[in-house]
Amino acid sequence: MPACKMSRSSQVTALVSGDRKKAEEQAAKYGVPAKSIYDYKSYDEIGNNPDIDAVYIALPNSMHAEYTIRAANAGKHVFCEKPMATTPKDSQAMVNACRAAGKKLMIAYRCHYEPTNLRAVQLIRDGKLGKIQAIESAFGFSEKMGEWRLNRKLAGGGPLMDVGIYSLNACRYLTGEEPSKIEGYSSTIDKDGRFAEVEENVSWTMRFPSGIVASCNTTYGGQMEGYYRVHGSTVICTWNPRSATKGFA
Amino acid sequence: MPACKMSRSSQVTALVSGDRKKAEEQAAKYGVPAKSIYDYKSYDEIGNNPDIDAVYIALPNSMHAEYTIRAANAGKHVFCEKPMATTPKDSQAMVNACRAAGKKLMIAYRCHYEPTNLRAVQLIRDGKLGKIQAIESAFGFSEKMGEWRLNRKLAGGGPLMDVGIYSLNACRYLTGEEPSKIEGYSSTIDKDGRFAEVEENVSWTMRFPSGIVASCNTTYGGQMEGYYRVHGSTVICTWNPRSATKGFA
Repeated sequence: MPACKMSRSSQVTALVSGDRKKAEEQAAKYGVPAKSIYDYKSYDEIGNNPDIDAVYIALPNSMHAEYTIRAANAGKHVFCEKPMATTPKDSQAMVNACRAAGKKLMIAYRCHYEPTNLRAVQLIRDGKLGKIQAIESAFGFSEKMGEWRLNRKLAGGGPLMDVGIYSLNACRYLTGEEPSKIEGYSSTIDKDGRFAEVEENVSWTMRFPSGIVASCNTTYGGQMEGYYRVHGSTVICTWNPRSATKGFA
Repeated sequence: MPACKMSRSSQVTALVSGDRKKAEEQAAKYGVPAKSIYDYKSYDEIGNNPDIDAVYIALPNSMHAEYTIRAANAGKHVFCEKPMATTPKDSQAMVNACRAAGKKLMIAYRCHYEPTNLRAVQLIRDGKLGKIQAIESAFGFSEKMGEWRLNRKLAGGGPLMDVGIYSLNACRYLTGEEPSKIEGYSSTIDKDGRFAEVEENVSWTMRFPSGIVASCNTTYGGQMEGYYRVHGSTVICTWNPRSATKGFA
């Protein structure tokens, strides 16, 4: 929302919240009129509000499908946080609802549009690194007790689908290929109650059709700034947070 | 040998080579008398040379066992390059021969003695990184056509046992554990004749008994400076060649 305020092409025109007081505070901050504050019951009434072109959905993962479908049914475009949903069935239902309503559906995964990553992809496609042989990547963080990401029903999974996906997708856009083989291990080390429903760590290795191999880690239990390291036959390309301010995650 | 020349506790007192001319050039450089130049046939005569305390074996991997055993039988200690041999059977025979001769046998794997690595191990054991969750590591290089490392009979294997072992061993000494599970993929991308006998790339993932996970890559076909990255619950510890002058490889 702060970024939206800086944008010349979009603005916050309505709010949906289960907490009226919080919604009013935010409304004051973003200049949203009281009539454009909704809760989860009145949400479908957005269809009557011409100030709303699109809905941005930042709810826990398992709620993406319902609120996308209700927005589409109300005649609004949808910009939904990643991951799209917690099942392929829900994802397909979201596509179907938006298609039936003639509305656009976009998932808020941006890394493959970031200038740094686009530059890395271009360097690779232009052969500046020689032939790509192998990639390492990792991304994770230490999640706090009680967060919805640790609730399997709300999150749909653990760190792999939340942040490990940045590493997996980096391997996909850097190679331009889909992995043909994948193996991995998950583990939980901290017995502090956080990881009763989702795993703490995932480590995996992949092989792509061209022969490029990749190894990745993700965690909800440690410090793991995102990075990738691409090994070409002649040059290494590394993106990490100490050497770049944009890109990846 | 240049390092040996700088040492105050050891010196080159004899040479073994199949190339007499090369041996004589090196002998002049290191002050080795002509009587202390051997070839692979006269090698066993080192037993009669009291100037020789120990033999350093830097032959292709598959020859380690024979020349270690012959040195032991000649009554000399042995310092043998890694990997120890190409089969467990050969390795055991080396141990047996040195033990029977009452001579020491050491394998030239040094990383677990390097100050930087010892410091990393100490930081981890002291809990300075919190609980270790995950490690990434990689090490490899682009091997030249015709090198003995690409000959399976001489080398015994590809990049994993030659340089990937640095990553695998880093995970072992950093965690202080032996991996309980391991999965990986190998691949060959370059069809330029180099990889007819050994694979070009290996990527693997491991799970240790404590739950620590690790993912690693190695290559004979690309630029891959050695590094490791250890993710603790509170701190990341990275060793890479841009930030350290010693350690790892």
